Amino acid sequence: MFALHSQLKSDTHFICDLPLSSALLMNDANYLWLILVPRKPDLIELTDLSFTEQTQVLQEINSVAKILKKEFNAEKLNIAALGNVVSQLHIHVIGRKKNDATFPKPVWGNAPAKPYATKEAEALIQKLKSLLPNE
Amino acid sequence: MFALHSQLKSDTHFICDLPLSSALLMNDANYLWLILVPRKPDLIELTDLSFTEQTQVLQEINSVAKILKKEFNAEKLNIAALGNVVSQLHIHVIGRKKNDATFPKPVWGNAPAKPYATKEAEALIQKLKSLLPNE
Repeated sequence: MFALHSQLKSDTHFICDLPLSSALLMNDANYLWLILVPRKPDLIELTDLSFTEQTQVLQEINSVAKILKKEFNAEKLNIAALGNVVSQLHIHVIGRKKNDATFPKPVWGNAPAKPYATKEAEALIQKLKSLLPNE
Repeated sequence: MFALHSQLKSDTHFICDLPLSSALLMNDANYLWLILVPRKPDLIELTDLSFTEQTQVLQEINSVAKILKKEFNAEKLNIAALGNVVSQLHIHVIGRKKNDATFPKPVWGNAPAKPYATKEAEALIQKLKSLLPNE
C-alpha cells in the first residue's frame, strides 16, 4: 500500500492526484515549488519505476512545468529527484525567478521556508487544481 | 550548431557521446558525478526537447544510473536539471554515498570541488566509456 511519507505530508499541501503521482505544494512561499510523488509503495529511486511509469512521470513533470512557465511566469525550472533526507521517491518541480530568495542557488538549505498564509495557500491550490490534469 | 558551454567544458572531462547527449565527468572526486548534455543548439529547459527526445534523455539517465548503482555502488542517486548558473540544458546524474563530502546535503555549493589526479580521471573515463552505450 502506498502511504505518503510523514515528512512530505507535513511540509506540503495536497493539490490533487495525477494519473501516477500525487501533486503537492511545498509550504514555502519563497518559490512556486511543487512535488510529485508516484503512488506506488517502496519507491526510492526514479529507476525503481518501470520505463513506462517513468515516461508517465515525465508527462506529469511536463504538465507542471508548463503551468509554472505559462501561468506563473517562472523564469527557470528546477527539476530534481534527490531524496537524500526523505527517501520516498519524490520529484521537485520548482519555478524560479531571478529575484527569488536564493537565485541562482538551489532551493535546498539556502533560506528558511516561508509558510503560506492559509487563504493564500487555498487560492493557489484551487488555481493549480484547475490547471492540472486531475484524475 | 551545438557547442558545449565553456563553463561545462572547463568543469568536466568528456567521456563519450550517447545517442542524444554527451556524457561528461564532473571534475570533482568528492562524488561520482556525471552530466548529460543533449547535443542540440539553444536548449535551456528540459521542456525545450520534444517528448520523444525527453524519453531518449530518460533512457540515457537510466544507463548512467544503472552504472552508478551496479558498478560504483552508489547508495543514492541525485538526478537534476537546474541550470540556474549555466543556462545550457544539462542533467546531473550523481552517485552519492552516505559518507561522501556533503551527504545528505545537495552537491551544489556545499564543498569545494576536489579535482581528479590526471591518471585517476583517465582510468575512470576509460571504465565509464566501456560501460556506457557509445555512439
